[in-house]
Amino acid sequence: MHGSQEVPSGYTYGRTPRSPVSLEELRQLETAASFADLDRDALAKAGRILAPQAEALVDAWRARIAAQPHLVKWFLGPDGKPDEDYKAKVKARFVRWVKDLCERPFDQDWLDYQHEIGLRHTPAKKNLTDQAHTPPLVPLRFLLVFTAEIILVPRRYLLAAAPDEADRLHAAWTKAVLLTIALWSEPYAREGLW
Amino acid sequence: MHGSQEVPSGYTYGRTPRSPVSLEELRQLETAASFADLDRDALAKAGRILAPQAEALVDAWRARIAAQPHLVKWFLGPDGKPDEDYKAKVKARFVRWVKDLCERPFDQDWLDYQHEIGLRHTPAKKNLTDQAHTPPLVPLRFLLVFTAEIILVPRRYLLAAAPDEADRLHAAWTKAVLLTIALWSEPYAREGLW
Repeated sequence: MHGSQEVPSGYTYGRTPRSPVSLEELRQLETAASFADLDRDALAKAGRILAPQAEALVDAWRARIAAQPHLVKWFLGPDGKPDEDYKAKVKARFVRWVKDLCERPFDQDWLDYQHEIGLRHTPAKKNLTDQAHTPPLVPLRFLLVFTAEIILVPRRYLLAAAPDEADRLHAAWTKAVLLTIALWSEPYAREGLW
Repeated sequence: MHGSQEVPSGYTYGRTPRSPVSLEELRQLETAASFADLDRDALAKAGRILAPQAEALVDAWRARIAAQPHLVKWFLGPDGKPDEDYKAKVKARFVRWVKDLCERPFDQDWLDYQHEIGLRHTPAKKNLTDQAHTPPLVPLRFLLVFTAEIILVPRRYLLAAAPDEADRLHAAWTKAVLLTIALWSEPYAREGLW
């Protein structure tokens, strides 16, 4: 399914260390997010609409980031300018994340890779994958508030392509995004508080 | 504006310690969530619809929690049964939170109280306000995934009361919820990672 697509640099899906979160815990999180079988179907349908727009979505999010010094600073190199090589590599993986979120089963590989993405936002692994020299962190507070943009920006595409089902598809998208963000937050949390 | 309402037990709005987050940082978070002046107006309008339904909303969320052992366990007393006194007090404040989120300005008092709410989900202050003996934590992962329910459940009321504006009002609600959740997450984060 993904074999015909170009593999982004640093995209190690299926080849990452094991997440500390168990599949049983993941199922609890799905239930707590009210992500049910119907949402799985809705998410797949949302993916058929959003996957062709994934680069446009990331461009829209990137434009919002670029306009805010407190967001863009986490992409700057030691010279104070945006690290374009790092940005391009992260972007390609970000585009793939949109597709993966809609298309991949939430299985062990998926779980492991969400943890890897989380680590890559923290000092544990930011910059490591791309051998970059940007600040070693995307702060948790910005990850969480920017989730509003991640949730809301795709709505226009769902409305345009499937107006009668947009709410159902968008609800599934909202739940899936919060599920993945919750998994990304694990490396940020104090011992025992996650 | 709130003077005529009964004050919930433990509701210390305007009388809490100072948040470690500055108003300048709060403004950055608002911008990162794309929360603009138009959203402030939309949130006020959403509040006029949601405030009368605030208890029904909390009842709906509570029913979801009650159905999931991994969520209800954080409300159990030492005897393994739900601590009804604690639940009732937290519920009254939860209802008020819905109203406050829509109606209060995002000023220093609001900022300080969001931090207080965050602390009351962690070992720093959970149980303290109500002298309860439930587990000392609501884990961050459940706080974040349950945000899907907090975002999505009110939509039906917005659609029923203002179908032509529901998207605009719901977007403002979504942004405001993520803003407050981000502020609640501060006590959970490792030093320097928030």
